[in-house]
Amino acid sequence: MIIVMKQKISKELTEAVEARVRELGYEPHVIHGEKRDVVGAVGDERGKMVLQSIESMSGVEKVVPILKPYKLASLEVCPEPSKVELAPGLFIGGEELIVMAGPCAVENEEQIIETAKAVKLAGAKVLRGGAFKPRTSPYSFQGLEEEGLKLLCKAREITGLPIITEVVNPRDVELVAQYADILQVGARNMQNFALLKMLGKLDKPILLKRGMSATIQEFLMSAEYILAEGNRRVVLCERGIRTFETATRNTLDLSAVPVLKGQTHLPVVIDPSHATGHVSLVPSMSYASVAAGCDGLIIEVHPDPEKAASDGPQSLRPEAFADMMKKLKAFAEVADRTLPNA
Amino acid sequence: MIIVMKQKISKELTEAVEARVRELGYEPHVIHGEKRDVVGAVGDERGKMVLQSIESMSGVEKVVPILKPYKLASLEVCPEPSKVELAPGLFIGGEELIVMAGPCAVENEEQIIETAKAVKLAGAKVLRGGAFKPRTSPYSFQGLEEEGLKLLCKAREITGLPIITEVVNPRDVELVAQYADILQVGARNMQNFALLKMLGKLDKPILLKRGMSATIQEFLMSAEYILAEGNRRVVLCERGIRTFETATRNTLDLSAVPVLKGQTHLPVVIDPSHATGHVSLVPSMSYASVAAGCDGLIIEVHPDPEKAASDGPQSLRPEAFADMMKKLKAFAEVADRTLPNA
Amino acid sequence: MIIVMKQKISKELTEAVEARVRELGYEPHVIHGEKRDVVGAVGDERGKMVLQSIESMSGVEKVVPILKPYKLASLEVCPEPSKVELAPGLFIGGEELIVMAGPCAVENEEQIIETAKAVKLAGAKVLRGGAFKPRTSPYSFQGLEEEGLKLLCKAREITGLPIITEVVNPRDVELVAQYADILQVGARNMQNFALLKMLGKLDKPILLKRGMSATIQEFLMSAEYILAEGNRRVVLCERGIRTFETATRNTLDLSAVPVLKGQTHLPVVIDPSHATGHVSLVPSMSYASVAAGCDGLIIEVHPDPEKAASDGPQSLRPEAFADMMKKLKAFAEVADRTLPNA
Amino acid sequence: MIIVMKQKISKELTEAVEARVRELGYEPHVIHGEKRDVVGAVGDERGKMVLQSIESMSGVEKVVPILKPYKLASLEVCPEPSKVELAPGLFIGGEELIVMAGPCAVENEEQIIETAKAVKLAGAKVLRGGAFKPRTSPYSFQGLEEEGLKLLCKAREITGLPIITEVVNPRDVELVAQYADILQVGARNMQNFALLKMLGKLDKPILLKRGMSATIQEFLMSAEYILAEGNRRVVLCERGIRTFETATRNTLDLSAVPVLKGQTHLPVVIDPSHATGHVSLVPSMSYASVAAGCDGLIIEVHPDPEKAASDGPQSLRPEAFADMMKKLKAFAEVADRTLPNA
Repeated sequence: MIIVMKQKISKELTEAVEARVRELGYEPHVIHGEKRDVVGAVGDERGKMVLQSIESMSGVEKVVPILKPYKLASLEVCPEPSKVELAPGLFIGGEELIVMAGPCAVENEEQIIETAKAVKLAGAKVLRGGAFKPRTSPYSFQGLEEEGLKLLCKAREITGLPIITEVVNPRDVELVAQYADILQVGARNMQNFALLKMLGKLDKPILLKRGMSATIQEFLMSAEYILAEGNRRVVLCERGIRTFETATRNTLDLSAVPVLKGQTHLPVVIDPSHATGHVSLVPSMSYASVAAGCDGLIIEVHPDPEKAASDGPQSLRPEAFADMMKKLKAFAEVADRTLPNA
Repeated sequence: MIIVMKQKISKELTEAVEARVRELGYEPHVIHGEKRDVVGAVGDERGKMVLQSIESMSGVEKVVPILKPYKLASLEVCPEPSKVELAPGLFIGGEELIVMAGPCAVENEEQIIETAKAVKLAGAKVLRGGAFKPRTSPYSFQGLEEEGLKLLCKAREITGLPIITEVVNPRDVELVAQYADILQVGARNMQNFALLKMLGKLDKPILLKRGMSATIQEFLMSAEYILAEGNRRVVLCERGIRTFETATRNTLDLSAVPVLKGQTHLPVVIDPSHATGHVSLVPSMSYASVAAGCDGLIIEVHPDPEKAASDGPQSLRPEAFADMMKKLKAFAEVADRTLPNA
Repeated sequence: MIIVMKQKISKELTEAVEARVRELGYEPHVIHGEKRDVVGAVGDERGKMVLQSIESMSGVEKVVPILKPYKLASLEVCPEPSKVELAPGLFIGGEELIVMAGPCAVENEEQIIETAKAVKLAGAKVLRGGAFKPRTSPYSFQGLEEEGLKLLCKAREITGLPIITEVVNPRDVELVAQYADILQVGARNMQNFALLKMLGKLDKPILLKRGMSATIQEFLMSAEYILAEGNRRVVLCERGIRTFETATRNTLDLSAVPVLKGQTHLPVVIDPSHATGHVSLVPSMSYASVAAGCDGLIIEVHPDPEKAASDGPQSLRPEAFADMMKKLKAFAEVADRTLPNA
Repeated sequence: MIIVMKQKISKELTEAVEARVRELGYEPHVIHGEKRDVVGAVGDERGKMVLQSIESMSGVEKVVPILKPYKLASLEVCPEPSKVELAPGLFIGGEELIVMAGPCAVENEEQIIETAKAVKLAGAKVLRGGAFKPRTSPYSFQGLEEEGLKLLCKAREITGLPIITEVVNPRDVELVAQYADILQVGARNMQNFALLKMLGKLDKPILLKRGMSATIQEFLMSAEYILAEGNRRVVLCERGIRTFETATRNTLDLSAVPVLKGQTHLPVVIDPSHATGHVSLVPSMSYASVAAGCDGLIIEVHPDPEKAASDGPQSLRPEAFADMMKKLKAFAEVADRTLPNA
């Protein structure tokens, strides 16, 4: 932690800061600059946010943190990329690129089973489908809940695809975990810490979506919540951030892939459907994601988008998905990844 | 809902859209433009987001909603400003400006009681204090939980000030409601719909904070979640939005006050402490908020900010708070508001 | 400048950084932390951005600047607020609040003279009006150019109000300076450095608008361009920044007022018309601006907004402006400002 | 243009709007909705922004434009992708992927010639290098100006590579055009309309960079300024937008590639160096850009980044550039592009 002092202040103020730094368990080092003093506080600053409160002391201009505040998510603790087991024998984070696909929401048996078969045939390795839907409007379709989970399981039985589905309420964690292979935390819940803590106690992989206005650092801090409770199977998912641009639903922050790879060992997945909001942009953004080095994709596919209960405009039809997967395979190879069965 | 067709398409495509609009229970009206057709769908579009899925039909360029998606929060349903009862006899939304003040987090008995006495003396009408703290880092102080609620009650007994505190987990709603007069939903939980629904069933006023990247419309939709469950005592709170500017912790969107006043009957409160993140900016932004027409303020006050467990840099000392309240009273009067006892 | 080294690197890398710091004319100070080293570079870092290039050296994680990069705009160079003379005897930055008002664009003689009389009567001290209009579309009305400047002068003759108008092309600086009392740099030109340098050589006051996505620091650096050329009569103007929110044209960053006051001696003006884009929001944001401590306002007034050639929806009618000025006077008094003749 | 009326207003107000629409030369069509009326204005709305002023009329809630405001840049006017000739025989927008590379700023003869040779050898087809540098700080290195242009020409003579360089002042357009093959408009000047108009009169290709906070639509409107003056050789360049994320210098908006391809015939280039600001992110974002469908890349290469006069941290060393080009070639092939000599 670096404490920048104001200009032209008495040296007593700098000394008071030194004393406070020492009192908090750190070793102070003062650099006397031409214009102002700077105090370095040496020690492990993580988990001791109280250093930030020094900013309230007289003569202090600002406090600049130096260390990253996360530990378990960092490359320091685990310098090699983690392979996370999504289902028995199915790993993400290694050579194989993992594509998860399916409808935004489970609507009925025919819809989910038809979609599951189609995405499996095209090379998807995981079936996605929402049973609990967090919707902006209380008047929108909120999902089939447990009934939806049961339909997902039926689709798993038939196709063998493991299933991923969202959980929004800490109360439902156990219920969802009974059915799902992978639990998903939506963007709106990235900082629902009660939910994260419960998921941290689970023995299931978690796909954590980045919040719409979350920095990379906050994203990793949310992963840290899960990791710190003992669950090391965390997969990160970039799904677009909120900016001024309205041509797309959100702005896909694709440079998050190499940025995350430089800071964490956790696998990184891209959701081009929610990021762009337009089906016409999904294939090119999927190719770009693989070229950027992501470990997987999660994509919305619906047999009849114009009648979808939610997110129709961003859902690919099964044929378009299959076409995309073929081209994706070629990009994956150049990126030193495999995409078997596509 | 207005459906904009693409240029130079066959008229069959427009007819298919008309048919689909009718099928969904709306009356289609086609305007044949020079360059393209536009189809108006007449009917109450709220709660029927399925119209949006028409965007997936061939020949459709985009779908533009016309009606606001919220009902109970709107001025159409309730054209006069609502007065919300915060505690027996204490109303917000009327002539009296309501100031809520206290520390970010309850730390110990002395701290909360000392602060409560000081803010009451200066004219605050509600004591704020966090017992359950949602923190970005799992290693930061997470609040005293129930013990904190008990200390708040002690402070209420001594000062008579009603208390407001945050609830972050749906599981804790009942517990917090046993102690608190007003329950607060933090910015990170604005779209924690499970929490909102539970609060909608409560007989307590709710202060709903705007999410860091929530539009005004999404903010009102979250209020609608609470209202739709039957709880009409909702107070809105603007606390800064996330932008590119880093000179302040967030960017206070003060024009949200008149924008909200033009769309909803719910009272509007400003939180200048979280919005700015710097104690030196709090007084001027408080004056500005009152001049802009807000109904109340929620302000962080701490007896010893440089030792605060959280948010020290944005907490006013009691003396600074008292000074500010005096000047605020003069601004309130010009804004046709009263601020008794300040 | 603080150079943060990576973890677990050989000490030769830190030594190489020390050597390079010395080579660039600074004194290096190394702090050996528990996890990593930090090198402080002591010396006047301003104007020597080359230090930033150290970030490319092996073993360096990041370079953190400590000093503010502006000089002449800073409170260090001039600790008291500057009073800038706008026209003989008319100062901004002192006790008197200065309101500038007029149409977005000069359209014809009647329009500008009628408006000038009306705004003067209501208490405005400067007449605004665009002759050179930077418009997003090449097909939109681009202003009357020199003809517009002449009409502004006619209005000045009749009312005695000094005039402010925008200059967009360095080529036109001399021409505009022949007619105008105050030259305005629009938001889109805040980093048009060729224009800024020319204005820096002028003996006329300059109103510099903040760019739509400019940080406070970049804003002050642009002011520094003008100041560094010798022109010390610079007035800053916040006019809304670009965010995700679409309920307003831009988001008025009102906390920029106290932030700027804490960093610079230059006067600060608010433009609530462009910031909000809606006439209904202008009065409340004007009151808020004065309460926040601004030195002046610049407001669009048009006698017939629904027929305005540009920006009709954000222009006040003269009567509404006059009403607003009355209430503004009361707020100004509480803010220890005067607003004579309103 | 769609005019949305307020609820519960007298029909006279709607009739007044109809009359005004007709007066402005459009055909009004009224749709009487359940809750409110909507008036469609049929006619070519482009270039007639005056329709927007209807928003000031009584009873009007908002005015929603339907047509895109640009013409010459649109696919309607030119439905096939344009191939723009950058230099005799060198086209962008066709099958061949064009890579432009070189230092941020021309510093001296050795630097630019060494770089030119290296980037040519690696497969670049155009040499970039700044002679006029728009810098945030007036105290930073501002470029060698005409001397820099001459050095660029020397490098062209030796290598045969055409050169691209930035012009920032309308006054310098002729001078720069004497030396350069392609003129570049920087992000800060995207809405420097005086500059755009001058470039529109030139017989040289123009690379137009997207402003840091410009929407796609504003970006195309700026291209329209150049096109409308007669110069049809415009190349668009996405170089990152400003968001809240600070892990990268800007946020590369890669979905802008397919969005632009769906709206315009102009070629699209990506600048991953400025977008990310970190050399470690440049290769992966270059691969992603090609996979997303861009027509070219512009990349910073410097022989000695740690001693660069500007933008060192984002400049690749020649060897790293050559390695990247090899892998880029493989991605280009999958994207049905060629990258000869790489």
